[in-house]
Amino acid sequence: MKAMGTVPAEFGAVDGELRIAGQGVTAHVAAAGDTPLFVYDLARIRAQVAAFRAHMPPGVSLHYAMKANPWAPLLARMVPMVDGIDVASGGELALAVAAGATHISFAGPGKRDRELRAAILAGATLNLESEGEAERAIGIAADEGVRPRLAVRVNPDFDLRGSGMKMGGGAKPFGVDADRAAALVRRIVASGADYRGLHIFAGSQALDPDAIADAQASAMALAARVSRDSETMPPLVNLGGGFGIAYFPHETPLDLTVIGRRLTDALAVRDPVLAETRFAIELGRWLVGEAGVYLTRIVDRKESHGETFLVTDGGLHHQLAASGNFGTVVRRNYPAVIATRFGAEPTETASIVGCLCTPLDRLADRVALPRAEVGDLVAIFMAGAYGATASPAAFLGHPAPMERLVDGDAAICPE
Amino acid sequence: MKAMGTVPAEFGAVDGELRIAGQGVTAHVAAAGDTPLFVYDLARIRAQVAAFRAHMPPGVSLHYAMKANPWAPLLARMVPMVDGIDVASGGELALAVAAGATHISFAGPGKRDRELRAAILAGATLNLESEGEAERAIGIAADEGVRPRLAVRVNPDFDLRGSGMKMGGGAKPFGVDADRAAALVRRIVASGADYRGLHIFAGSQALDPDAIADAQASAMALAARVSRDSETMPPLVNLGGGFGIAYFPHETPLDLTVIGRRLTDALAVRDPVLAETRFAIELGRWLVGEAGVYLTRIVDRKESHGETFLVTDGGLHHQLAASGNFGTVVRRNYPAVIATRFGAEPTETASIVGCLCTPLDRLADRVALPRAEVGDLVAIFMAGAYGATASPAAFLGHPAPMERLVDGDAAICPE
Repeated sequence: MKAMGTVPAEFGAVDGELRIAGQGVTAHVAAAGDTPLFVYDLARIRAQVAAFRAHMPPGVSLHYAMKANPWAPLLARMVPMVDGIDVASGGELALAVAAGATHISFAGPGKRDRELRAAILAGATLNLESEGEAERAIGIAADEGVRPRLAVRVNPDFDLRGSGMKMGGGAKPFGVDADRAAALVRRIVASGADYRGLHIFAGSQALDPDAIADAQASAMALAARVSRDSETMPPLVNLGGGFGIAYFPHETPLDLTVIGRRLTDALAVRDPVLAETRFAIELGRWLVGEAGVYLTRIVDRKESHGETFLVTDGGLHHQLAASGNFGTVVRRNYPAVIATRFGAEPTETASIVGCLCTPLDRLADRVALPRAEVGDLVAIFMAGAYGATASPAAFLGHPAPMERLVDGDAAICPE
Repeated sequence: MKAMGTVPAEFGAVDGELRIAGQGVTAHVAAAGDTPLFVYDLARIRAQVAAFRAHMPPGVSLHYAMKANPWAPLLARMVPMVDGIDVASGGELALAVAAGATHISFAGPGKRDRELRAAILAGATLNLESEGEAERAIGIAADEGVRPRLAVRVNPDFDLRGSGMKMGGGAKPFGVDADRAAALVRRIVASGADYRGLHIFAGSQALDPDAIADAQASAMALAARVSRDSETMPPLVNLGGGFGIAYFPHETPLDLTVIGRRLTDALAVRDPVLAETRFAIELGRWLVGEAGVYLTRIVDRKESHGETFLVTDGGLHHQLAASGNFGTVVRRNYPAVIATRFGAEPTETASIVGCLCTPLDRLADRVALPRAEVGDLVAIFMAGAYGATASPAAFLGHPAPMERLVDGDAAICPE
């Protein structure tokens, strides 16, 4: 038997079923019409936003990295809750504009000319990834007769310790190396562009608050160095993100208290060149990950060589990360339950697999569960971020997942 | 510097460019209208089919596992070239029917009732994955007043040595264990269904011909055992697939001679219970993998800490496997070239990365290349199978890839 991650707090039962927001899972599936189904609870997202505001120093902006979950009904509700939307493509830019976002910044290493043009015309801030990209942006803005909003993404000379995904500390395709950043800032200012500041992203999915605080302090020091060297005050410094969520056994949710206290301290002693600077933290997974539950129905229950398999109508085509096939070397189990028997004592060891005809499609490997039958619903937690869009949805020709947004007791979409 | 896989034979140059079928890459991109672009050459697929027919014993059927590449224009041309189409979902079933397939078999561990119904009504053979699925299929057929075509998928008690993906030899969600298969065959026959035979799939992506021949011989022996135990002659035995292609350094293309000779020998001495049985081999990747090339354009060229990055408009959202993030533990480089400088001597070490804002998005890691500039085209080979549909296409909101089908000098789609 293998361990599973811990079901996030506050998921209760109603009539022996998992309750998500105000409803049992059967009611959610009935409202959506089918499985597999992602249910997102806006109340949980709002609680994360409130926790951020409560712990971070006043004036620190919160950006939503929409790559974590770009579903339009959810995005439209995120826009008024946060201070900016960070996009990673022209497609995301269009979605953000459609959702009513007015503070948009765009980072991504392979921006095409047409994406640069669209961003400049939309008034988005471009986080420039290279000198070459800067020249293209300046040229396109000149063609359009528009003053572009330009910031510099700096490839940090440090990393975020313990992060699931390192984005700094060595040769990287992201941003310009720290020792070239000041020259690029000068070039942007000289071009007459509206210089917006610096973007420094050292890593993601970290659960050690001191490691995050260290990275924020390092980002602030790096921003000060670049700003002194370029003799330019940055209006905004994006300190990156990195706030992780507890997917796996023995992980504990991130404590914001330490981060908030240390960030307050760091701001108090910051270099005078940053005196007028605003700071932002860019979060995706941490805001929406725990708010999502993936529901899939058991289609078959079978034994093979003494092992029990619960075969579902979902799988890695919607939950690539949960299957252990995206950015992980060793597969570990996300928290999962038999949602229609929530709270029942485990009585057997079983594996939950998807409907794809590949041994990679495993959602839970040999975990303790109450006995489940065909027709029961399985819930995979931590499914609000990097689920539906970060999975090979077309693989093997299965239908796209359903998605549902609720806000506590209220249904938002579909109503 | 790291090694790359070998560019498949017969790719030549025209005007200093990679030639795919009759045209240079620039012409392909112009015809399709944009990058990233998958180009599939039907002539290469036809050559694989011909090689299969030339080496395998007469009467051995060739099935196409359409999960490898379900693109409709390609699938429509595959149907008349092969003897059957193997589908893995109701969605694939619908595509196969639309493509004109009449010999369809359906394997997949999580078939829903509606998929079983659609397959029964379409006259497809269901490869049953469990006793429970068998009962559901029999019940649905009775409801519909149709005699269903039913076969049994057997979880083999052996594996395919050296296969990239093991599908047998232990507890598996696929098929019924060998020791329960005879009972299920009897149940099917007793139900009055049209019993179609056995499906035995031990693994995929193997390059050792003797390992494949061993697995085929083992499958034949297992089929004989099940058939004797059930006192039932199987009309068809699907021996599985497993024919691999050479993606990586030090791999060599599969030699069919050994497989054909050993299969001929095995057929000659097969158990008399299989005397009237037809045999099929089910291939996907081997038929279409080498026929596809993924073309993506360099959007940025940059240096970081002494390393060179060529940033393209493609990435893991179309080529998850090439990025090393699907079913592989250690990332290795697919064959890749600067397609607009094909044949030029390597002059530098560079990494080819995608446009996604994640360090996972690497298409070639520190390989020797001629110096390339913004605007050059990159080609990733072995892209015909498990590319567009086996990748998270919606991730980060980038556009879907273009696809193009040619037949030597002739354009098929788009014309």
